[in-house]
Formats: sequence, structure tokens, C-alpha cells
Amino acid sequence: MINKLISNIKKTDAPIVVGLDPMLSYIPEFMQKKAFAEYGETLEGAAEAIWQFNKEIVDKTCDLIPAVKPQIAMYEQFGLPGLMAFKKTVDYCKSKDLVVIGDIKRGDIGSTSAAYATGHIGRVKVGGKEYTPFDEDFVTVNPYLGSDGVNPFVKVCQEEKKGLFILVKTSNPSSGEFQDQLVGGRPLYELVGEKVAQWGEDCMGDGYSYIGAVVGATYPEMGKALRKVMPKSYILVPGYGAQGGKGADLVHFFNEDGLGAVVNSSRGIIAAYKQEKYERFGAENFGEASREAVKDMAADIREALAGR
Amino acid sequence: MINKLISNIKKTDAPIVVGLDPMLSYIPEFMQKKAFAEYGETLEGAAEAIWQFNKEIVDKTCDLIPAVKPQIAMYEQFGLPGLMAFKKTVDYCKSKDLVVIGDIKRGDIGSTSAAYATGHIGRVKVGGKEYTPFDEDFVTVNPYLGSDGVNPFVKVCQEEKKGLFILVKTSNPSSGEFQDQLVGGRPLYELVGEKVAQWGEDCMGDGYSYIGAVVGATYPEMGKALRKVMPKSYILVPGYGAQGGKGADLVHFFNEDGLGAVVNSSRGIIAAYKQEKYERFGAENFGEASREAVKDMAADIREALAGR
Repeated sequence: MINKLISNIKKTDAPIVVGLDPMLSYIPEFMQKKAFAEYGETLEGAAEAIWQFNKEIVDKTCDLIPAVKPQIAMYEQFGLPGLMAFKKTVDYCKSKDLVVIGDIKRGDIGSTSAAYATGHIGRVKVGGKEYTPFDEDFVTVNPYLGSDGVNPFVKVCQEEKKGLFILVKTSNPSSGEFQDQLVGGRPLYELVGEKVAQWGEDCMGDGYSYIGAVVGATYPEMGKALRKVMPKSYILVPGYGAQGGKGADLVHFFNEDGLGAVVNSSRGIIAAYKQEKYERFGAENFGEASREAVKDMAADIREALAGR
Repeated sequence: MINKLISNIKKTDAPIVVGLDPMLSYIPEFMQKKAFAEYGETLEGAAEAIWQFNKEIVDKTCDLIPAVKPQIAMYEQFGLPGLMAFKKTVDYCKSKDLVVIGDIKRGDIGSTSAAYATGHIGRVKVGGKEYTPFDEDFVTVNPYLGSDGVNPFVKVCQEEKKGLFILVKTSNPSSGEFQDQLVGGRPLYELVGEKVAQWGEDCMGDGYSYIGAVVGATYPEMGKALRKVMPKSYILVPGYGAQGGKGADLVHFFNEDGLGAVVNSSRGIIAAYKQEKYERFGAENFGEASREAVKDMAADIREALAGR
């Protein structure tokens, strides 16, 4: 699956991911009203609004982007109907040949991690039959429980040729509280980065491993250090745009080959029509605004990479 | 909710939690067959088998126990039908006056943690209406992202009088890989434990905080140290029984008042009929075997506490 991600990135010349993290407040009122008219102001109504919103954004951007990253929390907050919208979104994006990164940040003791891996990137057996319940291409994983919490995910990746992005250094302001603590003179995130490189060794695609890392755009210096610690790991970089990261901050996340990183933007793309820069599109054409924002983001990163 | 947990513990004189973590292999064949006859060998069939299995165990044990802890991964692995069985289980246990600890181990950046908190222990707004999607009483939370990933959960606990158990030292063999790393001469888990105590200060019930911690039964010495670091935090102790923890290992997790800890057993209770000790019950009476295992576990812990 890492090979497919890289091939999609080369095809679009855009190392970017659109974060499909819909809040109801991002969804234009006309679209909410339509969903509520059909399903009422219910969880089902919210789920329908989310699904229609996602579909329009995917339709308007899928030829320009290699991958999407739906954040499952934004669906889970609407209970089972929300999770149905998550599943519909995953399936629809795959039908458009997009790589789907399920941002699920799961992680537990061995047997429990195995169940998460099975449900999201693997196959579950029921009697004599097998099913692929959520069927994302990649998932994000929390490493706090150590190797035996991560290995079941790695095993499923090997079997299914799927991939992981493991949290190393997250983009949020207080990520340093534990992740930056010095362990033998080095920050904990470097230790986690080394483990990511190790876990990835037995799961190599053509040039990069199936096992990647999450490192926030908001910490470019750490991105630079971690790039060296994990030379064969793809880095998923959240925090571009709304969280404050800029193209110029991102060059050190990439290798010299122009590969090795993929940058996520969520709100900056999916709620672009709410920004002054794109308000000319109007709420009715929010998908066009997202398309324009994708073009601008890809150009920003291309320029930064060309200028380094 | 911490007050209710403590009152349930006093009522049953059993500081224990039954982990409702059903694997299909734990479910007696006759029960699987019945579910598959109705729904086929499908995700729906698996979900029905899980739900019927849980219901029988809850019916046979609910008068003896204060709380249950369904592990959501075991349901999530069966996709949406599995999550429906999770929700049915939560609702059913609440109808039996049990405290429900959703073992979800979520945790993300602020806005995303807020969505998880809303979905699992809070209320979500849809237009002019409000819903409580999963509606557990407590959830488990992963702290790797730091305070701004935990605070949204704490805020919802304050609003809804619900509770958390935050991962401090997990029960699995490789938990030490990151959690035991020395930071300024002290292990990272102690630093996390101190934070748990701080997060809990603004969320006090009558004697204990709404904000508790997870510390594995498999590390009794660390439980002893952490008990002092977090005197007002309830400790959820996984790892009893099948993972190797014994009653005598557990006394240091409790305060002098005999409170302060609640010990989880999953496989040891729900699959008791598969153990030699309880095989006399037979697969048809697996619920009775679970009841007997609950009695034995409660007695083991009571004796250990009495003998300290």
C-alpha cells in the first residue's frame, strides 16, 4: 500500500492528504437543512449531512490528491449512524482510487490491538467466512503500550500489504509534556522514532516501509531530526494550515528524492469556503472552494521543495 | 459517577469489574450456531452471538458485581454490527444498575478528543436536539498527547459527572518500553501519574476523583508507588487472572480504607467454563461458571485485603 501511496503522489505531483474531519459547523446550512428535512434533527440526519458533504469534497478534489484521512472521532461522536457515514466515506474514496488513511489512533495490549487491526485493515473470520469490516488502507496507531501493542498491527500489514502511521511527535501544543521528556539525554519521541524504523524493517515496499510515523508540521526542527532517525519511513505531517504549519516549515520532513512525507490539511481544505481567501465561491460552491484550496496547498509545498 | 461506582462496590463487597471482551472462540458452539442459523455466518451473526453471550453473563453475575468493562475493540473488529452489539451491551448493563467502563483507550489533539468525549460520555447537538450516542459511565484514555488531549475528556466529566481511567502503567509485557523510561531519574509512568492526580483535583466526588488511572496487576511494585502519587484517584487494575495477576499482588493498589482500586478480569470470568476448575458446569451453563468465577475472584481479593 505504501507503493500505491507513492504512485498516487507522483501521479498528482502533490504530497498532500485531505483530512475528512467534518464538524457540523463546517457543513453549509442548505446541506444540513436538506439532510434534516429527510431524516429529522437526528444522529441519522447528522450522518447524512456529513456523508453528502464528504462526497461533494471528494468529487471536487479526487483528481488532484493522492489520499484522504478521515478522522474517525468526528464520525464516532454521532454514534452508530456516524460510523456508517465513516464506512461509506472510506468505500467511496477507495472507489475513486484514493488511498484511505483511517485516523483512528488505536493501540492496546496485544490481543486487543489484534482486534483493532483485524477490524480496520484486516479480515475477521465468522464461521467459514471472512469479512473486511472497515477496510482502510492505512491506520494511525498510538505507541504508548510498546512493541506488543504495535506488533499485531505490523503483522496484519505484512499479511494484507496495508500500512501504519505511528504517533511519534504530535502537532498539538502540549505534545511535549510526555513526548519531549529526555530519556538518557534524548527526547522520548526519538526513541519512539527509532522503534518505528525497527518495526518498519520487516515491512518494506519498493523504497519505503509500510510502517510510517506521524510528526506534526508545527515542530519543523523535530521533523528534521526524525527524518534522519527513520530514513525509510513515510512521515504523515498533520498541522498544516489551520494549526499553523506552512510549506516552508515542511521541507525537512522530505527526503532528497522529494518523497518521504505527506502533509495533511483538514479544516483548511474542507471548510475553505469559510475563509476570506475563498469566500467568493459562496457556501453553495464549497466544493469548488476546497478544490482551489487544494491547488494552493499543493503549489505552496511544491514551491517550498523546489526552493530548498 | 465515581460515587456510584464506590456505592456499588460497597453494596456488593467486591471491588471487581467483569471485562466483557468476547472473542468468538469464547462463545459456546450452540450459541454461535443459533445466531448463525438466524443471521448467517455474517458480521450480524457474530454480533448476535456476542450480544446473547454477554446478556447471559450479565444476567448471571449482575447481583454480585459493581461494574463491567466492555473492550470496544472486540466489537469494532466486527464492524458496524459489532458496534451495535457494544451499544446494546452498554444499555443493558446500565439497565441492570451496573457502572459501565467503556474500554476505548482514545486520545488525540484537543478538538478530536472533544469529539470522542462527546460521543462516549457526553452529548452531541444536532440542530436543536441533543443525543448521548454511546453513553458509557467511564472511559479509558491514552495520555501520550499530553494535557490538551486529556482536558476535553475532563471537561465533559465535569459537565456530565462521568469519569475517566487514564493509562499510566499498562499490564502488557512490553509496557515498560516507553512507560518505564527514566525522566529526571523517575519513570515516565510516575510523571503521568502525577498529571492524573492534577487533572483529578478539579473533579472530586465525595472522597475520590472522577479521574482515575489504569495500572496493571502484573506490576504490583509500581502499583504501590503509584498509589502514593495519586491518593485520590481510583485505580482500574487489569491483568488479574489470565494475564497472571493474583489477589495477593493487589493489596498495594488499595488505600487503607479498602477502597481506591477496582480489579478487572475478562477471560478468567467470561470464558470460565473452559477452565478445568469450572468445566463441571459444561458449555450450556457457561453463565453459571462465570458466576462461580466471580465469587472466587471476589473472595480471593477480600481475603488478600483482610490478610494485609
